[in-house]
Amino acid sequence: MSDTITASASERVRALVADMTLEEKLAQLVGYWVDQGDDLVAPMAGEFVTTTQYEDATVHGLGHLTRVYGTRPVDPIERADWLWGEQRRLRTETRLGIPAIVHEECLTGLATWKAATFPTPLAWGAAFDPEAVEEMGALIGESMRTLGIHQGLAPVLDVVRDPRWGRVDECISEDPYVVATVGTAYVQGLQRSGVHATLKHFVGYSGSQAGRNHAPVHAGARELADVFLPPFEMALREGGARSVMNSYAEIDGVPVAATPEYLTALLRDEWGFDGTVVSDYFSVAFLHTMHAVAADLGEAAAQALAAGIDVELPTGDAFLAPLAGAVRDGRVDESVVDVAVRRVLAQKEELGLLDESFDDPPTTIDLDSPAHRASARRLAEESIVLLTNDGILPLGESTGRRVAVIGPNAASAEALMGCYSFANHVLAHHPGTPLGFEIPSVLEALRGELPGALIDAIRGCDVEDDDASEIPAAVAAAHAADVAIVVVGDRAGLFGRGTVGEGNDIDDLELPGIQRRLVEAVVATGTPVVLVVISGRPYAIGWALDGASAPAAVAQAFFPGEEGGTAIASVLSGRITPSGHLPVSLPRSAGAQPYSYLHPILGAPSEITSADNTPALPFGHGLSYTTFVRDDLLVDPTTFADGSFTASVRVRNTGERAGVDLVQLYARDVFASVTRPVAVLAAYQRVALEPGGQAVVRFDVPLARLSFTDRTGVRIIEPGAIELWVGPSCAERETTASLEIIGDLHVVSPADARRATARIG
Amino acid sequence: MSDTITASASERVRALVADMTLEEKLAQLVGYWVDQGDDLVAPMAGEFVTTTQYEDATVHGLGHLTRVYGTRPVDPIERADWLWGEQRRLRTETRLGIPAIVHEECLTGLATWKAATFPTPLAWGAAFDPEAVEEMGALIGESMRTLGIHQGLAPVLDVVRDPRWGRVDECISEDPYVVATVGTAYVQGLQRSGVHATLKHFVGYSGSQAGRNHAPVHAGARELADVFLPPFEMALREGGARSVMNSYAEIDGVPVAATPEYLTALLRDEWGFDGTVVSDYFSVAFLHTMHAVAADLGEAAAQALAAGIDVELPTGDAFLAPLAGAVRDGRVDESVVDVAVRRVLAQKEELGLLDESFDDPPTTIDLDSPAHRASARRLAEESIVLLTNDGILPLGESTGRRVAVIGPNAASAEALMGCYSFANHVLAHHPGTPLGFEIPSVLEALRGELPGALIDAIRGCDVEDDDASEIPAAVAAAHAADVAIVVVGDRAGLFGRGTVGEGNDIDDLELPGIQRRLVEAVVATGTPVVLVVISGRPYAIGWALDGASAPAAVAQAFFPGEEGGTAIASVLSGRITPSGHLPVSLPRSAGAQPYSYLHPILGAPSEITSADNTPALPFGHGLSYTTFVRDDLLVDPTTFADGSFTASVRVRNTGERAGVDLVQLYARDVFASVTRPVAVLAAYQRVALEPGGQAVVRFDVPLARLSFTDRTGVRIIEPGAIELWVGPSCAERETTASLEIIGDLHVVSPADARRATARIG
Repeated sequence: MSDTITASASERVRALVADMTLEEKLAQLVGYWVDQGDDLVAPMAGEFVTTTQYEDATVHGLGHLTRVYGTRPVDPIERADWLWGEQRRLRTETRLGIPAIVHEECLTGLATWKAATFPTPLAWGAAFDPEAVEEMGALIGESMRTLGIHQGLAPVLDVVRDPRWGRVDECISEDPYVVATVGTAYVQGLQRSGVHATLKHFVGYSGSQAGRNHAPVHAGARELADVFLPPFEMALREGGARSVMNSYAEIDGVPVAATPEYLTALLRDEWGFDGTVVSDYFSVAFLHTMHAVAADLGEAAAQALAAGIDVELPTGDAFLAPLAGAVRDGRVDESVVDVAVRRVLAQKEELGLLDESFDDPPTTIDLDSPAHRASARRLAEESIVLLTNDGILPLGESTGRRVAVIGPNAASAEALMGCYSFANHVLAHHPGTPLGFEIPSVLEALRGELPGALIDAIRGCDVEDDDASEIPAAVAAAHAADVAIVVVGDRAGLFGRGTVGEGNDIDDLELPGIQRRLVEAVVATGTPVVLVVISGRPYAIGWALDGASAPAAVAQAFFPGEEGGTAIASVLSGRITPSGHLPVSLPRSAGAQPYSYLHPILGAPSEITSADNTPALPFGHGLSYTTFVRDDLLVDPTTFADGSFTASVRVRNTGERAGVDLVQLYARDVFASVTRPVAVLAAYQRVALEPGGQAVVRFDVPLARLSFTDRTGVRIIEPGAIELWVGPSCAERETTASLEIIGDLHVVSPADARRATARIG
Repeated sequence: MSDTITASASERVRALVADMTLEEKLAQLVGYWVDQGDDLVAPMAGEFVTTTQYEDATVHGLGHLTRVYGTRPVDPIERADWLWGEQRRLRTETRLGIPAIVHEECLTGLATWKAATFPTPLAWGAAFDPEAVEEMGALIGESMRTLGIHQGLAPVLDVVRDPRWGRVDECISEDPYVVATVGTAYVQGLQRSGVHATLKHFVGYSGSQAGRNHAPVHAGARELADVFLPPFEMALREGGARSVMNSYAEIDGVPVAATPEYLTALLRDEWGFDGTVVSDYFSVAFLHTMHAVAADLGEAAAQALAAGIDVELPTGDAFLAPLAGAVRDGRVDESVVDVAVRRVLAQKEELGLLDESFDDPPTTIDLDSPAHRASARRLAEESIVLLTNDGILPLGESTGRRVAVIGPNAASAEALMGCYSFANHVLAHHPGTPLGFEIPSVLEALRGELPGALIDAIRGCDVEDDDASEIPAAVAAAHAADVAIVVVGDRAGLFGRGTVGEGNDIDDLELPGIQRRLVEAVVATGTPVVLVVISGRPYAIGWALDGASAPAAVAQAFFPGEEGGTAIASVLSGRITPSGHLPVSLPRSAGAQPYSYLHPILGAPSEITSADNTPALPFGHGLSYTTFVRDDLLVDPTTFADGSFTASVRVRNTGERAGVDLVQLYARDVFASVTRPVAVLAAYQRVALEPGGQAVVRFDVPLARLSFTDRTGVRIIEPGAIELWVGPSCAERETTASLEIIGDLHVVSPADARRATARIG
């Protein structure tokens, strides 16, 4: 147990806990899922439906109310009224009068009926714009706070390691620093509005074998420390996140939910975290049923609690009767329970819950205000990645032009939203229920964006099924057109519904269904084709980038949200110049996975292996409608290992249009005491430039960006030579410099590990 | 440095070392590759060609002579005469008069012109017959000893983790216990003949990311301990292997060649190994050039030496001048050099080299004697795995039957040999040079085996290229035949030559080239088809096992060696009843990799992931021409954790033919403190039974077979319930029993970790 948290509980909390019965304590450590039923969308939910009635379940109080807004389409104001009543009931009809923490999903916006749906995290990564993400987080937080929600189950800080995994669309990037900076911005935005962020999934979840959800993670301590942990550390130390959710994963044989080394020793003792650790849904019970490291639910509870999980979500499968039994039979010391209860009550006190009277439920709310839409649009526009372009884009003047709009994602609103959107997470189970907000499809947006064009729309095929009967009509439409816009990709869903999302892992990275066939058929007509991929993972579309089947231009959007159709249309028309960059490598093939750009020398092709794993396009790639030249990279030639370095680089807009460049500074530690990646993103900055304009971007980079875990497990900065460069992606050195780290080896302290900063001159 | 080895050096060796100059010492720590040239087949060989002339290089003596027989096609007796002369020269013309250790590859037999080529290790695994492997090892050792070779660079004890890796054909199995028992048998055979075995590649090499050769290994300490290390431990502790070769791999950022934790602390201090550690070719230099953990070759040498590598192979790129420099400038203490020199001289003393006069070179030798051929044939016959059979096999009486023999591997001798065979490793660079021994192809053997049949042979397509022009002729031949035998698969080679073998990694597990298309075209004729796959890795041939394209029967042979064609033909005819079993899972797809049958619950399909990774056929599968029933599994109901258990099972031959069953005893630890596989092979035994015959197989299984590394890093046996079963593969429970381990948790000692034994009653 951690002295930190024990000490940080107030006298009031201590007194409360001292007065509680075991049942009252355990009640504070669990959630209750009011709306649960057969159509829940969490893994194995059916096996853990609590049969106790709600009133019985709350007789001793309640820790968390689970997803009261996000489980079914309920009117937010009506539900708020119910919620305020329930909180009053907990205040007045339980002995201790402690209200519940209300938690909800909020990854792509508040997961509630009628609420704004923002771009998915991969799109945040593609925008490389923490400020825009913080703004979005603050708006999401405001909505939540107004509805009485205290804790949001976001952001996902899992570093992408394998695109086969279905939850890649919930992740930000394959670069830990991008995940850290963008994820921390989300935390700061959400918490600025008074809602606790929950960092998930701590830790290692995304490293599962072959990208299969929940499968064992084969990783060593150094990979954990240098790849998986840094985003969490930044979001805690700099972002001040108040809650952490454990990963379902086992790492090298030990489930994280039962690992005190991560959940207590690292998180609390080393990093000083004093918030709450909540379990991912059902993961405490999974210690028994899925990991088989606990012979029963009482032992599962004991292990999870001892490891450092304070709250079992979504309900008390293990932390109620089984844990009570374990306490009573002496397997668990009640003082361990007390620690968790103190943490939960401290969180409630911090949130003001212990003093809230719940007299004034909201009577009106706009969950999709103009501010929401502007934020959603900004991020969507910034996130669209132009992969190739032979000059066909921007489309420009369209009056009288015949435009065929083809593909299963062209006229689909659902195609624009991620798997944790309310639409794809919940409404998919309620056919006929309207979305409750505007979300123009690409097709609808194109009609507005190309007002004079003669648009002929045909689906061509489904996202998933193999019915090719519509392809001839699509081909005919393309034949008759001056340009064909083909919009393909994913449909987000969960556990077998959809092509990407939680549980939707794949062993093949071709576009789902027969979409490649559709694209190839349309390209074969000879009509110039613009391909738009709207997806939740990067696909192996090398065939579309080069060669006989390659469209004239290809744009990649990661589920861009309610303004995504509009953003795509405005990028195609040219009203917006694209500025997104790949936050993940575009993979070569499923069989070349796992792959990360952060590989050492031997992770790349060489004469030692015949298997070419070069990505179809590298991390950081993204074209514009204008051109940029970066030069004159200047770096302090030497710096001591305990310091930072300054790098400046000039970027010029050498084209005809205004545009935004992403200045990417990469580094390589030439020789180190452990193997190091051939390229590491050291800093990045978006820079807007008018035609002919130029700017000098000056980065102040703490050397901790180049730190790593040494052979003894200590995070260090080592003296030696560093190569630095700026270029249009991780794979190209446009301007280079070098730096010598001098002085003694330096052990990294928390103060060292701040973010790089940029000034634009 | 290890006290063990320091202490074990004799007075004579100590005195020798005390008398040596630094140059004389370093000369003992390196090899010299006499025949090297541009056509060497080791990775990056060209970059490390030693320019020093041989005479200069040996002026201070020489540690090893590198591959004097196995580099070019040289007449063994002529080369032996040269070698004896060279050893006399070292004795008489160097100051200390110490002859060189002569090492050679010997994985599929001595890698020398005209020497017998045995089945590849995957075939040893498929035979599940350690005794046959030991017999083979002894024959290989005899040939080597006669030719003055002291050390063989085999066996490969890497546990198969990913079939995409090209070197899978050099490995025995995906089960560590099968690797351990079969590999130890090889060691015992080789060393019985007086030749030192070299265990390779210590450790982790086969776990490289995405199966790419030399790519980083992402594995934690527990996986290393419980999967990768056990074969090495058994081959050292029980097999008494005298040398170990390091792995090229980095594990979690640290190259094994620079890891004292493995090469000294574990190997010597914990396991008590007192032989020599030799570097895999060029791997010391790779610390500088490939891993970039050493800024120059001197530092690379220093790290390797400090880690525990005694001898640099194939030559002294780092251990000569660079290491001398490092000693002289104080970076390396000469006492560390001395330890390695003592180990090398102790090995020479042990081999009798210090007293050998080299007066009597052999004047005649038969490297492919009847004993060799009998051994090669036994192992080949035992290793052929019948995957499916609708009853077409055995072919039986063939007089007058029209048999089409199709496929690129049907008439090929090379197709029968692995990548470390002299033919595919060396002779491929010397076109026109005859093999020097008999190796009937499948086609040739079938002509003998089916004397009355009307055989029409046509290749149909190449192994690798995409030329489909021969397919129509193959289809016509099949149309005209009563039965078609289609022989497809791999061509072993290295570094881009061939489809499997060192450096020939793939990101796709389809049969190479257009072979699937050939098979499907032949099957489509309606003529019954027997498919024979001769390969070095398991391919994703699920389509051939079931469904419209499935041949009537499929047999899998892993490069079965010089008697492999004969063995395949005799299995097809029915003269031999097949008895091989899959030593690796037959994969579902490349995108489902990595996969191992040794997975915990969450490594298997579940409703938590949509990605089905179920193998096309499971580990242990293999049909016979007769049928076996296993029942009446009886197990001690309880046993203390420091003991063993006895399990007996009855196996009956319920068919019409004599046959050999492989009795496979599997275990599952139901709940454990870390996640455990859902099935672990606890013991196995081949049992020959006449029709109607039966036997009771009694296994005595040390509980160490069920041990694992706990959360604190200690190998333990834990009390609790164990499920046991016997079945036709890991996936089927034909007869079950259970066992309760009682008493205290037991820490495993070396004495516990012996092999399971079987008695057949």
